[in-house]
Amino acid sequence: MIVQKYKDMLQGKSVIRQLSEFATARGQEIGYENVFDFSLGNPSVPVPQEFTDVMIRMLQEKNPMELHGYSQSLGIPSVRDKVAASLNKRFGMNYTGNHIFMSTGAAGAIAHAVRCVAQPGDEVLTFAPHFPEYAPYINLTGAVLKVVPADTENFQINFEAFEEMLSEKVMAVLINTPNNPSGMVYSTETVKELARIMEEKQKQYGHDIFLISDEPYREIVFAGVDAPYPSKFYDNSLSCYSFSKSLSLPGERIGYVAVNPKCTDADIISVMCSQISRGTGHNCPPSIIQLAVAEVLDLTADLSVYETNMNILYKELTDLGFECVRPGGTFYMFPKSPESDAIAFSEKAKKYDLILVPSDSFGVKGYFRIAYCIDTEKVERSLEAFRRLMKENY
Amino acid sequence: MIVQKYKDMLQGKSVIRQLSEFATARGQEIGYENVFDFSLGNPSVPVPQEFTDVMIRMLQEKNPMELHGYSQSLGIPSVRDKVAASLNKRFGMNYTGNHIFMSTGAAGAIAHAVRCVAQPGDEVLTFAPHFPEYAPYINLTGAVLKVVPADTENFQINFEAFEEMLSEKVMAVLINTPNNPSGMVYSTETVKELARIMEEKQKQYGHDIFLISDEPYREIVFAGVDAPYPSKFYDNSLSCYSFSKSLSLPGERIGYVAVNPKCTDADIISVMCSQISRGTGHNCPPSIIQLAVAEVLDLTADLSVYETNMNILYKELTDLGFECVRPGGTFYMFPKSPESDAIAFSEKAKKYDLILVPSDSFGVKGYFRIAYCIDTEKVERSLEAFRRLMKENY
Repeated sequence: MIVQKYKDMLQGKSVIRQLSEFATARGQEIGYENVFDFSLGNPSVPVPQEFTDVMIRMLQEKNPMELHGYSQSLGIPSVRDKVAASLNKRFGMNYTGNHIFMSTGAAGAIAHAVRCVAQPGDEVLTFAPHFPEYAPYINLTGAVLKVVPADTENFQINFEAFEEMLSEKVMAVLINTPNNPSGMVYSTETVKELARIMEEKQKQYGHDIFLISDEPYREIVFAGVDAPYPSKFYDNSLSCYSFSKSLSLPGERIGYVAVNPKCTDADIISVMCSQISRGTGHNCPPSIIQLAVAEVLDLTADLSVYETNMNILYKELTDLGFECVRPGGTFYMFPKSPESDAIAFSEKAKKYDLILVPSDSFGVKGYFRIAYCIDTEKVERSLEAFRRLMKENY
Repeated sequence: MIVQKYKDMLQGKSVIRQLSEFATARGQEIGYENVFDFSLGNPSVPVPQEFTDVMIRMLQEKNPMELHGYSQSLGIPSVRDKVAASLNKRFGMNYTGNHIFMSTGAAGAIAHAVRCVAQPGDEVLTFAPHFPEYAPYINLTGAVLKVVPADTENFQINFEAFEEMLSEKVMAVLINTPNNPSGMVYSTETVKELARIMEEKQKQYGHDIFLISDEPYREIVFAGVDAPYPSKFYDNSLSCYSFSKSLSLPGERIGYVAVNPKCTDADIISVMCSQISRGTGHNCPPSIIQLAVAEVLDLTADLSVYETNMNILYKELTDLGFECVRPGGTFYMFPKSPESDAIAFSEKAKKYDLILVPSDSFGVKGYFRIAYCIDTEKVERSLEAFRRLMKENY
C-alpha cells in the first residue's frame, strides 16, 4: 500500500519554493528582469572554462567504456586520492583516499554521514538559523533532529542552550559554516569552544559524539574573515562537501564525505558509507563528473560577485536602518525584519517586487533571508525598491 | 556512535567481487587476455557515438548555468516528458511526464519504488534465481525480502510456491525480466498468470500489492523471444529502468521509475519519490546526463555481440553435456553445475582460468553464471578451456 508518511509530506510546501514560483509568475507579467528575486540559493556565475574543456577532452579522447564505466560505490580511487591530497595541502590534514567517500552533493554526504553514526531514535543537534532541509534529511533516517536556539547577537553559537540540549541521546552535531541563511562564519574561538564541550560530553557519556560539518559554502568567504576548517579542531569529524556552489555545478550532484583520520573507526567509515549506499540506491556520483572535477579541484567559479553584492546590500540596508550582522561568506544575508512578523514583512516586500524569504522556516522568527546570487546590476536596481518599501511602510 | 549494522555488513564479501579480484590478480600473472573472466556484468560495447556527440555539443553551446543547474528532484520536466513519449510509442502505454521519476540507475529506482509501497516490517517477494543485491536493497529500507524458490524447469515462475508465500504481509513483488542471472525472459503467459494471482490476492486481502519490475536488461532480448512489458498486464506496476546496459553507461547512474497511470495514486507517486529522495540524499541523476540521454532514448549501444556470444557458448556447452535453459536475453547464462556443489565446480574451473560464479548467492544451489559480456574472440578462445575442464574432471 502507498506509504502514508511520504504522502503526508506532499502537503507541506516550502516557503522558499512558493516565493520562487511567485517570482517566476510575476516575471511573466512585468519581465523577470524587473523582479528582484532574492529567493533561491542558485549560483549565478558559470563553471570555470577549465571544467568544460576537461569534459570535452575526455569525451573526445577517452575510451568510452572506461569513461562511463562503473565507479566503485565509494568513488573512483584516483579521484578520492586527489581530493585527499587537495584537502591536505589546503588545511594541513592527513587524509588518504580511504578517508574520502564521493557523494551526490552535500545532501548525499549528510545522508550517509548521519546513517554512519546515528540510529533510529538517536538525536542529532543543529543550530538555528538552519537550512530547512535538515529536518527531512535527518528525520527520514529515523534519527531525530533537535534545533538549538540561535545566538541572535552574532549568529555564532548559543553555547548555554547547546550544553543544555547535548544530552546522552545526542550522537551527532550538525553545523553549517559558512552558514545558510545567516552568511556567518564560525570563528576559531567558536569552533574551539564547540569542540571543547563536545569532548567533555563524550567523556562524560562514554560514547562518541560526531561533528557533521556541512560545508557547501566553504570557498565563499569574504576578505579578512577567520574561517577555520572545523575538522582540524575535533577528531570525530565528518566533513560534508559539495562542488555545487564552488564550481557552480548544482545539477551534477557531486560532493564528498571527508572522514577525519583521527576519528573512531576512521579507516572503515568510507566503506560503511558504500554499504549504506546499497540501501539508498547506489547513488555514487557520475563517473565522468568525478573524473572532471578531480582535474579542477583547486579552482572555483569567479565567486567575487557575491562579495561585491554583499557590500552593496549591506551598506544600503544598514543605512536604511536594518539591523544586520555583516556576512562573512556565502551569498546570503539575514537582516532583522523591521516588524516582528517576518511573514507580514515579506508580503509587503512583494508589492515592491522584492522577493525576500521570512526566517520562520530557518528556525528563528523576525528575520529575513536575502539570497544575493544574482547579477550586480540587478542588486543595484533593487536598492530603490528597498528604499520605497521602508519609506512607505516603516 | 558508529552504527553496528553497517559495520557488520563489511564482513560479508561478495562472491562475484572475490572472483573478479582473483581474475584481475591472475591477469597480472599471465596477461588478462588469457583469463576467461566471466564474473562481472559490465557492458563490453561502447556508448553510441550520438550520445558522445550530444554531450560535446551541449558543453560547447549551452549556457553552463542552465546545463549544470539544479534539476528538480523528480528529474528535468522535458526529460520526463520524452521518456514518457518513448515508452508510450514502444509499449502502447499512456504515461505522461508526471508518471516518470528520474533515478540513479535501477538501484536508485528500486530504492524509491520500495519505499513508496512497503513500510518497515512489510514483506517484499522476489524469485530465485535473483540478483544478490536485492537483499540489501530491500532489507535496508526496513522491509523484509523473501525469496520464492526457483522454477528450475525453465526459470519462469514457481507459481505454487508463489501463491503459498503471497501472504497478507506482502506489499510488493519484485521481478527481473530479462533475468540476471538466468538470462530468461518471462513469457506473456507467465506475466498474465502472475498478474492474475496478484489481483486475486489484492481483492482477498483488501490492499494493494505492487509489482516492482526491475528492467535493466529490457533492450537485450534475442531473436524471436516473447518479451512482454510487464506493466501492460498489471495496473499496480512500477517499472524500474536503467540506461546502464542499453547505452553502456553504468557509471553515469541514470534510470527511472515509470508509474503505471492506472495504479493507485498514480499521479502522486513520482512526487512521493521526490520526497523520499530528501532522506536518501537528493540523488537525482546529473543534469547533463539527463539531458543527453533524452536525445538518444530510442538508440542502444550495439548489443548484438551478446547474442553472438550466447549462441557460441550455448552450442558448445550443451555439446559438452551441460544442462542449460537457452537464454532469451541479457548477457548471462545459467547452466547446471556438473557436480551438485557449484562452489567446488567454480574452484576447479579457476584452474583452467575460467572465472564462473557459483549460483549459491543467487538463491539456488547447483548452477553457475556465465557473464558473457566480453569480446567474442575471447569467448571463442575460452571453449578449449571448457572442454579441458570437463574432460579432465567429469
